[in-house]
Amino acid sequence: MTEPILSHTLANGLVLVAEPMPWLQSAAFTLLVPVGCAHDPADRCGLSGFTCEMALRGAGPRDSRRLIQDLDNLGVERSDSVSEVHTRFSGATLAANLPQALAIYADVVRRPHLPLGQLESARQVMIQEWRAVEDEPAEKVMVELRRRHFPDPWGRPTQGELKALEAIAVEDVHQHFGRRYGPSGTILGVAGQFSWDRLKAQVEEMFGDWAARDAARIVESPSPRAYAHFPFESNQTQIGIAYASVPYRHPDYFRAWGAVGVLSGGMSARLFTEVRERRGLCYSVYATCQTLRALGAVFCYAGTSTERAQETLDVTLHEVVRLKQGIESHELDRVKARIKSTLVMQQESSSGRSGSIARDWYHLGRARSLEEVFALVDALSAESINAYLAEHPPRDFTVVTLGPRKLKVHDGIS
Amino acid sequence: MTEPILSHTLANGLVLVAEPMPWLQSAAFTLLVPVGCAHDPADRCGLSGFTCEMALRGAGPRDSRRLIQDLDNLGVERSDSVSEVHTRFSGATLAANLPQALAIYADVVRRPHLPLGQLESARQVMIQEWRAVEDEPAEKVMVELRRRHFPDPWGRPTQGELKALEAIAVEDVHQHFGRRYGPSGTILGVAGQFSWDRLKAQVEEMFGDWAARDAARIVESPSPRAYAHFPFESNQTQIGIAYASVPYRHPDYFRAWGAVGVLSGGMSARLFTEVRERRGLCYSVYATCQTLRALGAVFCYAGTSTERAQETLDVTLHEVVRLKQGIESHELDRVKARIKSTLVMQQESSSGRSGSIARDWYHLGRARSLEEVFALVDALSAESINAYLAEHPPRDFTVVTLGPRKLKVHDGIS
Repeated sequence: MTEPILSHTLANGLVLVAEPMPWLQSAAFTLLVPVGCAHDPADRCGLSGFTCEMALRGAGPRDSRRLIQDLDNLGVERSDSVSEVHTRFSGATLAANLPQALAIYADVVRRPHLPLGQLESARQVMIQEWRAVEDEPAEKVMVELRRRHFPDPWGRPTQGELKALEAIAVEDVHQHFGRRYGPSGTILGVAGQFSWDRLKAQVEEMFGDWAARDAARIVESPSPRAYAHFPFESNQTQIGIAYASVPYRHPDYFRAWGAVGVLSGGMSARLFTEVRERRGLCYSVYATCQTLRALGAVFCYAGTSTERAQETLDVTLHEVVRLKQGIESHELDRVKARIKSTLVMQQESSSGRSGSIARDWYHLGRARSLEEVFALVDALSAESINAYLAEHPPRDFTVVTLGPRKLKVHDGIS
Repeated sequence: MTEPILSHTLANGLVLVAEPMPWLQSAAFTLLVPVGCAHDPADRCGLSGFTCEMALRGAGPRDSRRLIQDLDNLGVERSDSVSEVHTRFSGATLAANLPQALAIYADVVRRPHLPLGQLESARQVMIQEWRAVEDEPAEKVMVELRRRHFPDPWGRPTQGELKALEAIAVEDVHQHFGRRYGPSGTILGVAGQFSWDRLKAQVEEMFGDWAARDAARIVESPSPRAYAHFPFESNQTQIGIAYASVPYRHPDYFRAWGAVGVLSGGMSARLFTEVRERRGLCYSVYATCQTLRALGAVFCYAGTSTERAQETLDVTLHEVVRLKQGIESHELDRVKARIKSTLVMQQESSSGRSGSIARDWYHLGRARSLEEVFALVDALSAESINAYLAEHPPRDFTVVTLGPRKLKVHDGIS
């Protein structure tokens, strides 16, 4: 019993999309601004993340400290992040506090101070975050996999590059903000308990006079793909494998996604069963669908001891390649059961829904209700997935390993 | 508008505690069996975790593969873990699937096969999990902090010791299961949509004839505390600080917890502001209340670059020590706003509530409703917290560092 999803597009292009969940006492928002690491200048990788960090350090009538205190006083559970195309600010709080929380974030994206006095402290935070990834081999391998698999700038690491982070000046931040932050392409997703009329009026008032910017132009260059090894002293080896798939907006997306669900997710999925459960090769193994607007991929990860790394890579690749022989109905039934359970639980969370409908809007130009997603999942059959897999067998792999020794990639890579 | 919490104690001591959330479509359970790493034989550290891993590899009429498949077919989002005193099995699924999911877990804790054929594969998983902690310096430092701060066996690492994991035989697992798994001290928390009469009847049927075991006896030995440094090659240094506090069951617990809330949690908390925001010293800093049944502590963590490690330790310790000078009302107001928001969101999650009421029962012998927790939080004042802090100033610190260089601990340690 979900309510219909509502939407409202401002004259300047900003989109409000909202899902009423009147049985909740909370409300959540996800604000996607169309500024991501794909928009960073080539010698300033990390500038979008840096700008996001700076935007939260004082905006409108509030200085840095006051802004954070006021959000804390409103009990806003918040987060922010940067993807290849978006800077995302999100928060959840008591329903009554939503309007005040939104007003603060309108200041953050429209009237940030970006103060010189906060630059060095922001830089330290950015550099520490960059280092944290460098020190986390399981993350690092997936960063390098992404970079090698997707054409530049889509594969760039959101945390940037150390040299660039060290070089960024306050003028870079001001210029990036001035050029990129704007209403066109900005999506505000709201879910939970709210009054639609009041929300719409507030969004018009907060964002209606935001002047449009020119859209960013992105020039792609080809990705290296193939196999790359990064030496790393450890008794563990990290393995990343990627192959092309379809993006979320593609009509076949749910088929591709159903196939990955048979591979990974749930402990009776093939990778978990074969690699971890039956052979005890890994402490972690998974596969996920990664989707840009126009490009899709499947990324697999396995973390294991160095002495078992070659066997782990072989078994994992074998399982991935074996997908083209098809999946069984009973495997799909499990995927369906799992996803329905996940959907019901997501339906109970205002944060989850505000993020989903905002992302939907970016990919599809509209938001899918959970009923619609349920119906798409229900309609999947082993036959339709197998037809998809026969046409799009996993191949031309990009492989990245991180550990003391290079491995051999036996199955075909690009 | 929460419903009253219900409970039912079986003749053999097993407790069912349940919170109806009839507006949800899901139901969740948390099953706490009184077997934790504090019960591991001294030369078999990790045996409780190993036994938990084995218990899921076939039980009742199902072999390992079948058990996992059936749980996946029921869409159960599940997890399991071991603490110092409990093995915890938990899951959430569609409300209609709860009875079948519970029946499978009744087999897991009463009739596991613990098959020799799964021993080596389980061992590999346990060893890989042990290694994953070893390779994760931010986790490792807190493992060592816990071990040095709490009297043995309370500070033991739940993932065990490598030597012990390598030595565990199937007889050890059978013996540990036979001695320790039993109804007395077992707590089943359920939250979400369910029929209380049917649930109670099912629990009686599933567990009513479970024969009681003798309770475990635990002998404590003193903890080393003071300062210990673990050499670790990295450009990062990990810092852990602990000091004594009161456990959850203590009447002063919420005061101690309010003080830690001023220190950490939310970006205007003192540690975040002073250490990360103002000085940009760390990529992560936090403090949390850790509670055993009879012992409480506060654990602080800071991860930073090695060149800034000494300054980070000094500033962090200074902030902790400064607590005894008291907190301000406006700081407490923020803690209250944050926690109310968190409580409202927890109230919307069946998983969260099933875990909370089960843990409450262990610590208090009853479950607290969210209204009661709200009232306890509302009743906090800066005066009452400051009176607590004056009586219990943070001191006698246990400090652990992990990195290339030893640091100097200037403020008093035990």
